[in-house]
Amino acid sequence: MKNHFSFIGGNEGAWLVTSSHTIIGAPLEPVPKLDIVNMPAAQLDIHATWILQGFTSNLRYTERKELTQLRAKQEGLNRPNSVCAALIPIKKSEEWWALPQDERRAIFEEQSHHTEIGLDYLPEIARQLHHSRDLGEPFDFITWFEFAPEHTDKFDALLLQLRASKEWQFVEREIDIRLQKI
Amino acid sequence: MKNHFSFIGGNEGAWLVTSSHTIIGAPLEPVPKLDIVNMPAAQLDIHATWILQGFTSNLRYTERKELTQLRAKQEGLNRPNSVCAALIPIKKSEEWWALPQDERRAIFEEQSHHTEIGLDYLPEIARQLHHSRDLGEPFDFITWFEFAPEHTDKFDALLLQLRASKEWQFVEREIDIRLQKI
Repeated sequence: MKNHFSFIGGNEGAWLVTSSHTIIGAPLEPVPKLDIVNMPAAQLDIHATWILQGFTSNLRYTERKELTQLRAKQEGLNRPNSVCAALIPIKKSEEWWALPQDERRAIFEEQSHHTEIGLDYLPEIARQLHHSRDLGEPFDFITWFEFAPEHTDKFDALLLQLRASKEWQFVEREIDIRLQKI
Repeated sequence: MKNHFSFIGGNEGAWLVTSSHTIIGAPLEPVPKLDIVNMPAAQLDIHATWILQGFTSNLRYTERKELTQLRAKQEGLNRPNSVCAALIPIKKSEEWWALPQDERRAIFEEQSHHTEIGLDYLPEIARQLHHSRDLGEPFDFITWFEFAPEHTDKFDALLLQLRASKEWQFVEREIDIRLQKI
């Protein structure tokens, strides 16, 4: 399953955890380090404090005009200068998931401007979304961001904008874990 | 993972396979029987000819007006008279999955009338969609239908309508397996 990733919190890993804040809901046990591997958790024979997993997938809300803008501005993960990262697992409410597609899209973009806000922070903030809900995981999404140290303030501003949005009224668990590449 | 289902083709099971037709793409080995269990394939210790798996999930294209109509007309699986079933695994092209949400929705409903066609056959034809692509499976979807023997002609008409649609131009593998409850 080449699109499955496991985020392993424990004493080993390529990323040093510099802070961990519970934004809403139950906390996640603090860990000193994080490793990311490109396989499902069930295939791992590893000792860890926790493992979160998710898969990359097709776009769920992005429309053609937004996709064109994203492709023109975004850069990939693993840029040499992007030694800062954030792992932000998120769980939305059952109310969110029971909404039909048009109502979720309207909240996501027309009311919350999720993609539009993200575009303002490209290419500085690179990101990758991993879907977890369909795997019976404790979170619905594992979001991952990479940026250079001098763009930390920009990243914080991005989060403030998103967390103030209508979409975030449906977020019932969120942990903000910051990391540095070792 | 309470939303994961495995479809086990082999010599055992609660459903007798009455026919199997390859509509497009590579065939699937014929089997005499099918069993369905509510767990992922990785948790099964079983001898079978093949196992297909998928998960039920939130709605991906349905809008509020359609959801209201579906809820008013549809009936669930396991009706006593619904002793006929169809298992139709489907794989769509990479071109389909690379499309943004608005273009997939436009093909799915405005051009192909997928939900509108399905509504015409409710409540006679009950159905359940299982998503497989994100699990690295050979098919993208495992579709399952249940109906009474006297509605077999209606079900065949439904399939003819869908297969003639623009959406089906993106289908590159499809097997039509018919079954009877034992």
